[in-house]
Amino acid sequence: MQFATRLDNVETSAIRELFKLLGKPGIISFAGGFPDSAMFDVEGLKEASAKALAEEPGGALQYGATEGYDPLRAQLSAFMKGKGVEVAPDGLIVTTGSQQALDLLGKTLISPGDKVIVEGPTFLATIQCFRLYGAELISAPIDAEGVQVDRLEQLIAEHKPKFVYLIPTFGNPSGAMLNLERRRKVLELAVKYGTVIVEDDPYGDLYFGKAPPPSIMSLTAEVPGSRELVVHCGSLSKVLSPGLRIGWMIAPPELLAKATMCKQFSDAHTSTFAQATAAQYLKSGRMPGTLAHVRKVYAERAAAMGAALKRELGDAIAFTQPGGGLFFWARLTGANGKLADANVLAKRAIEKGVAFVPGAPFFAEKPDLATLRLSFATANVEKIEEGIARLGAAL
Amino acid sequence: MQFATRLDNVETSAIRELFKLLGKPGIISFAGGFPDSAMFDVEGLKEASAKALAEEPGGALQYGATEGYDPLRAQLSAFMKGKGVEVAPDGLIVTTGSQQALDLLGKTLISPGDKVIVEGPTFLATIQCFRLYGAELISAPIDAEGVQVDRLEQLIAEHKPKFVYLIPTFGNPSGAMLNLERRRKVLELAVKYGTVIVEDDPYGDLYFGKAPPPSIMSLTAEVPGSRELVVHCGSLSKVLSPGLRIGWMIAPPELLAKATMCKQFSDAHTSTFAQATAAQYLKSGRMPGTLAHVRKVYAERAAAMGAALKRELGDAIAFTQPGGGLFFWARLTGANGKLADANVLAKRAIEKGVAFVPGAPFFAEKPDLATLRLSFATANVEKIEEGIARLGAAL
Repeated sequence: MQFATRLDNVETSAIRELFKLLGKPGIISFAGGFPDSAMFDVEGLKEASAKALAEEPGGALQYGATEGYDPLRAQLSAFMKGKGVEVAPDGLIVTTGSQQALDLLGKTLISPGDKVIVEGPTFLATIQCFRLYGAELISAPIDAEGVQVDRLEQLIAEHKPKFVYLIPTFGNPSGAMLNLERRRKVLELAVKYGTVIVEDDPYGDLYFGKAPPPSIMSLTAEVPGSRELVVHCGSLSKVLSPGLRIGWMIAPPELLAKATMCKQFSDAHTSTFAQATAAQYLKSGRMPGTLAHVRKVYAERAAAMGAALKRELGDAIAFTQPGGGLFFWARLTGANGKLADANVLAKRAIEKGVAFVPGAPFFAEKPDLATLRLSFATANVEKIEEGIARLGAAL
Repeated sequence: MQFATRLDNVETSAIRELFKLLGKPGIISFAGGFPDSAMFDVEGLKEASAKALAEEPGGALQYGATEGYDPLRAQLSAFMKGKGVEVAPDGLIVTTGSQQALDLLGKTLISPGDKVIVEGPTFLATIQCFRLYGAELISAPIDAEGVQVDRLEQLIAEHKPKFVYLIPTFGNPSGAMLNLERRRKVLELAVKYGTVIVEDDPYGDLYFGKAPPPSIMSLTAEVPGSRELVVHCGSLSKVLSPGLRIGWMIAPPELLAKATMCKQFSDAHTSTFAQATAAQYLKSGRMPGTLAHVRKVYAERAAAMGAALKRELGDAIAFTQPGGGLFFWARLTGANGKLADANVLAKRAIEKGVAFVPGAPFFAEKPDLATLRLSFATANVEKIEEGIARLGAAL
């Protein structure tokens, strides 16, 4: 058989290879990018699915509209309103996880050779998803305050990208949070250059102290002409359950209609069974309690990891304590002649019984080999302390 | 915003326009392509989902492997074995409905300008899905015994297609069943020309009298060298519930690996919540009873529709009584000066209170304007008789 050459643009993930080693007994893993299963509200979801099947078996089990199940679209509209975004139920479509929103953006917007600006570093599956459609990715540098907007402007002016993709709030892998001033500037750039901004926001609800600045989408209300240039992708995966595969996309009407057409031929519609369950869950009023719980637990774990990294690795590692999300993004400094190559450290760490992901694959261009991503989501405080001690020993 | 030109290849569906009229009160619809909600085993699915959440909450709610949830893959392997196909659990992947299997085949195999042979007529969403990837579709003519294999051979030899897509058993819209001799011939052609055959089989379990011939995939055992050229797509949508969005694809290892990589960036994985529910349902042993029930009900409805068509439309319509599936495929003969344009009839029929889908959009090339598709799935016998009487009046 012959295969389309577009697959040749996608590297076999280095991370896949690493993950094969995770089966080794006793490994403490900071490598995953997923929430802790122990935090799923199983009871709440059990009630929600039973109620969906009892009250609306037709809706939950029959084919549904490609745009999404109306009761869920109404709940998501209310959920977004609680986060400062005014969007009518028909101003969003339900996607099969926010991964599908990325895929639909690629399918709808990217022609081979088109340029797309992403953060350097950015979400690995985004890089691969957009490349599959033939995009050339340009990296805009970031710091702990998110994307550097002056550099972003230069890149937009130079490359005239099809769109700019950002994870502005507790990004994966960066953990960075785009500050308010930069958020406004991003919108001004969108209007100035007529550039579409895609805001991917799976982590915004997972803040530890005070809430992050308003989303880029909610700030469009302050910047005339910007709303029609912003796409916002949301997800229940990190806050409720990835297994439901419920994401959503808010976008200008024309783009939403084209994305819906693409979705029709991608999977017809997202599982109505999962959609009806999610709608009942949101309606049940349990979500605020669930969010408060996960925020508290992840905040403790993040605090423990930060303290342990300082204690065990000292000035051999540099990082900014994340204010939310699931990740520490760190850089080996090479201080005192210590190792500064995260790929080498990853192998040594596995031998010592701890795993993390080297940062290189998260860069669409010029990888920084000294960087690494550590997730604090799935290990408890005790394991985090033990794991970071092992990491110190490996270094 | 600019959009990729590939969407220009996809016509806005004429059927969508028709479906907008279906809201008219009192309409009897034979237009749908879906099973009857009243036949869903809601109790069985309620038990299955409760069990999944009780016994395997982590598996049902967490991220899962892109290839599919292992307990479901094992159940589907056993389900296929019951239908004569030997496939190991890792010889198939779970897809988000079989629509996603088509999308993954497009994404994996089709480069712009590639040729694909389909049946004329074939499933509408297949035409649009493959065109979105830039395929040029070639139609192989069919009759009540399925695709005409002599003509198929000429087309393969002439066009050297990337693959041949068939719905050999009670096809949508044709209702046709490829006979055993032709199935063997298709496999011989696959080997002779090195051509991939995609067998889409969502309806094979919905037979009314005796079971259909073995699937093309199961016949590969008889034709040396053919197994590595056949892809088989299955689905629970027509026999259990479309809302679960559970389909599967059996394919040679290399193709399966590439399709899995494409799926990773399409939706990460199919809802594990839906997968765990489907696995528990198949494990519960209720499926044979469910199948027996739906076969019986649809058989009665098909018999009623066939009799009513003969009674009410006489020699103005020609059709073969389907042996399974959900559809009658018919042709207006124009006998005695009667109408022979199904588009015109569709409009008149709506005025008389009955809906069906004209056949033209199901043809990738040269539509036959006299054809129409009638689904008998969702109306009971009484409604079918009334609806066909109205159709007779419209004609």
